[in-house]
Amino acid sequence: MNPYTELETRFRRIGALEEAEGILHWDMSVIMPKGGAESRAEQLAAMKLTIHGLLTDPSLASLLDAAEDSPPSDGWQAANLREMRRRWRHANAVEGDLVEALSKASSRCEMIWREARPKGNFAAVSESLAEVLDLVRQKAQTKASILGVAPYEALLDQFEPETRIADIDHLFDDLAEFLPDFLDNALAHQTAAGDPLLPQGPFDLEAQRSLAAKLMEHVGFDFDHGRLDISLHPFCGGVPDDVRITTRYEEDDFAQSLMGVLHETGHAMYERGLPADWRLQPVGQARGMALHESQSLLVEMQVCRGIEFLTFAAPVMQAAFGGTGAAWSPENMQRLQARVERGFIRVDADEVTYPAHVILRYRLERALIAGDMEIVDLPSAWNDGMKELLGIVPESDRVGCLQDIHWFDGAFGYFPTYTMGALAAAQIFQAACAADGSIKAGISDGDFAPLMSWLRVNIHGKGSFGTTDEILIEATGAPLGTKAFKSHLKARYLN
Amino acid sequence: MNPYTELETRFRRIGALEEAEGILHWDMSVIMPKGGAESRAEQLAAMKLTIHGLLTDPSLASLLDAAEDSPPSDGWQAANLREMRRRWRHANAVEGDLVEALSKASSRCEMIWREARPKGNFAAVSESLAEVLDLVRQKAQTKASILGVAPYEALLDQFEPETRIADIDHLFDDLAEFLPDFLDNALAHQTAAGDPLLPQGPFDLEAQRSLAAKLMEHVGFDFDHGRLDISLHPFCGGVPDDVRITTRYEEDDFAQSLMGVLHETGHAMYERGLPADWRLQPVGQARGMALHESQSLLVEMQVCRGIEFLTFAAPVMQAAFGGTGAAWSPENMQRLQARVERGFIRVDADEVTYPAHVILRYRLERALIAGDMEIVDLPSAWNDGMKELLGIVPESDRVGCLQDIHWFDGAFGYFPTYTMGALAAAQIFQAACAADGSIKAGISDGDFAPLMSWLRVNIHGKGSFGTTDEILIEATGAPLGTKAFKSHLKARYLN
Repeated sequence: MNPYTELETRFRRIGALEEAEGILHWDMSVIMPKGGAESRAEQLAAMKLTIHGLLTDPSLASLLDAAEDSPPSDGWQAANLREMRRRWRHANAVEGDLVEALSKASSRCEMIWREARPKGNFAAVSESLAEVLDLVRQKAQTKASILGVAPYEALLDQFEPETRIADIDHLFDDLAEFLPDFLDNALAHQTAAGDPLLPQGPFDLEAQRSLAAKLMEHVGFDFDHGRLDISLHPFCGGVPDDVRITTRYEEDDFAQSLMGVLHETGHAMYERGLPADWRLQPVGQARGMALHESQSLLVEMQVCRGIEFLTFAAPVMQAAFGGTGAAWSPENMQRLQARVERGFIRVDADEVTYPAHVILRYRLERALIAGDMEIVDLPSAWNDGMKELLGIVPESDRVGCLQDIHWFDGAFGYFPTYTMGALAAAQIFQAACAADGSIKAGISDGDFAPLMSWLRVNIHGKGSFGTTDEILIEATGAPLGTKAFKSHLKARYLN
Repeated sequence: MNPYTELETRFRRIGALEEAEGILHWDMSVIMPKGGAESRAEQLAAMKLTIHGLLTDPSLASLLDAAEDSPPSDGWQAANLREMRRRWRHANAVEGDLVEALSKASSRCEMIWREARPKGNFAAVSESLAEVLDLVRQKAQTKASILGVAPYEALLDQFEPETRIADIDHLFDDLAEFLPDFLDNALAHQTAAGDPLLPQGPFDLEAQRSLAAKLMEHVGFDFDHGRLDISLHPFCGGVPDDVRITTRYEEDDFAQSLMGVLHETGHAMYERGLPADWRLQPVGQARGMALHESQSLLVEMQVCRGIEFLTFAAPVMQAAFGGTGAAWSPENMQRLQARVERGFIRVDADEVTYPAHVILRYRLERALIAGDMEIVDLPSAWNDGMKELLGIVPESDRVGCLQDIHWFDGAFGYFPTYTMGALAAAQIFQAACAADGSIKAGISDGDFAPLMSWLRVNIHGKGSFGTTDEILIEATGAPLGTKAFKSHLKARYLN
């Protein structure tokens, strides 16, 4: 067997074990009784250790060296080899001791955070968070020296490969300049239009589930290859051939759950559309979190909160709940789904204010990793940033720097991908509509097939063949930018 | 680290991976959409390969040798080391090529069987089954030479360690002599008593589920450490700290599902009661399939189909469905749950005729493995055996030698454990009641705590500390025998 072929065999096994891990994670969030937590933690640790062992096996390094000495001529195989090396680099960059120390510190910190958050007690968790940060900085520095990038970029690389600080700054500075005025305008526009009407509940939970499943199928979700279930925090899990999304239902509001389901369906369609020929291989996997988020936001924000889709969907919603009155008109529904508000909480934010939340976190975590800031300064820096970006100051750290799990769980370098995803969503949707006139018409009829066909060819089916920018250039003619996003916002919020 | 301690670390990881495998299997039967089958097969194959790799790692053999050179003085550690060696022997006995060939041949054969069974077309599958048998014979011979036992005993050892043909013959010949006359008597007795009344459905499915859950809790099932779900074929899966049983509900008959649930609850209680200090270690796991089946049959057959339990449970059932009339009296319910009938299908058989089904299969598979019989002779030998043991002859192989999946899936040596379990159930229950007078009184009140406390100490908590006979001798004063079973049958069916 030649080295490359042997590598495919090895990574196929790694991929299959990671899929198994994915199912176990899904089960933990959706199915597992609470008494199973300890044994599940042990199962997952054993899986992680096994996968890590395969990636750090010295013979794998030899195979990679040998394969790179006579690289495959086929483009996909060459890309696969590159992604194998990326996986290898990340797994081998950091000593096992540091990985374990970070894993333990993060678990400890996350537990303290769960107590501290509801009380807004930042002081209770700051020492533990400082310990996590110290270890993350060590990890970042080690990876940075191997990848030849800045420490923060080494963290970004784990979620969104090849991303550079300069590129993010370029995008985010532009947005940070654009958004404050735009937000004022959008709010003024919204006030002038008056309040939309709110459909009155209660909304039967089974009717909500059945409506969600119906609209998922319109988007293209195939229930032979996936599921819809309930969990505390909605997510998209499972594996490409068995992709599982979750939601939670509230009796007095169906729209939040429904839009969440459509968001996760976007993630699911990406996973389902990944190149089947490269299943379980590194190149066959999702490119990164920015592109992943672009697919959920494309379905939710670009399409499903737009008037074209709601023209089709509002009557379907109305019928599902037997609703009556003007609240159910597509125009009213659309205004309800495009409300803008200055708020403290990222996960509740609309698409206009969301980037401000992300930019704040990006700037703070960059400074923390660079050593330009310490944990003790976080609450005041947070509040200053909120004031600058959104003009409001949280009255408690509970709705300030304690609100998100990411840092307390050791995840630095993830936040920017949310807004990169929002930008990509607008850019991709614009290009798709320009390329195929039947896409918008399809959406007005509840038919996503033209859109999904285009996405499968131009985004989903690319897997990790190129970088995000390479995929975007081929699909949209340009690297990631703010132009399409800004024109989307103007069209939706100032008209 | 001394060799034994290092072995504990290794086997703990193996145990955790096997638990992960258990959850993936459960998911496959209960949750997975059909389109996930191919990727799940790949995940499970990767898990199996990983576990096999850990068990056949040469360094494990060295550790076992070293640990055996200076064995631990602690009894449980010594027993654990013995069970580690057993695991090692089974994993290392057979070449990877043969394991793979058998796995592929079994999958192929099982698929052909699924087509052939409904048509009663034995000829369609006989060639494929002969191929499986040929490979199983090879495996049996290889293992036999290593274990120093007969080939068929080497297969038995996979399911019920240390079992000898002579012991099974001794038990089964005794039963084969006892049962024909006893069956005639029981049927005459049943006829003389007249037909019991049948509660009339439909029985609401949600009420069935809720009744099942309620009675599970009476038995002692803890829903913080387990679940009840639906699957095509009821089973007990999951892991000891998260034990998951399944059933299926029929609208026109609640009792079959309910008795099935109570049966699986018996399995679940065994898993939950395994020694927590030895979780994930070989000695901490269930002893074998005979003792496992004894625990399900003890709960279902010994207890839940008996008049003491039904005196408590019949009113509960009646209330669950709002039933009225004499059909719901404990006496009538008990007669319904103890019907005897000569039938063709093992899984539908009552406890009187069940052993005949097992003895037939045992004799046939023993002859097949020994080379005293070939696949082509199976249908006629089956029908001859049915005539001899039960006095009836199936009109089609569909309800004859094609009915069970076991052989077509490569599982030879499993069947005897069902009846060994039935014998053990009677013997254990008799000993438990003799040891603790509050057990029977508890059951009449729906309180299984005294029984389960006794079982936890004397059976469940033993794990694999001794052989089945050693555990039985300590718990009941005698090795596995037929006496308690026969007296149970006489008490229940001739009174």
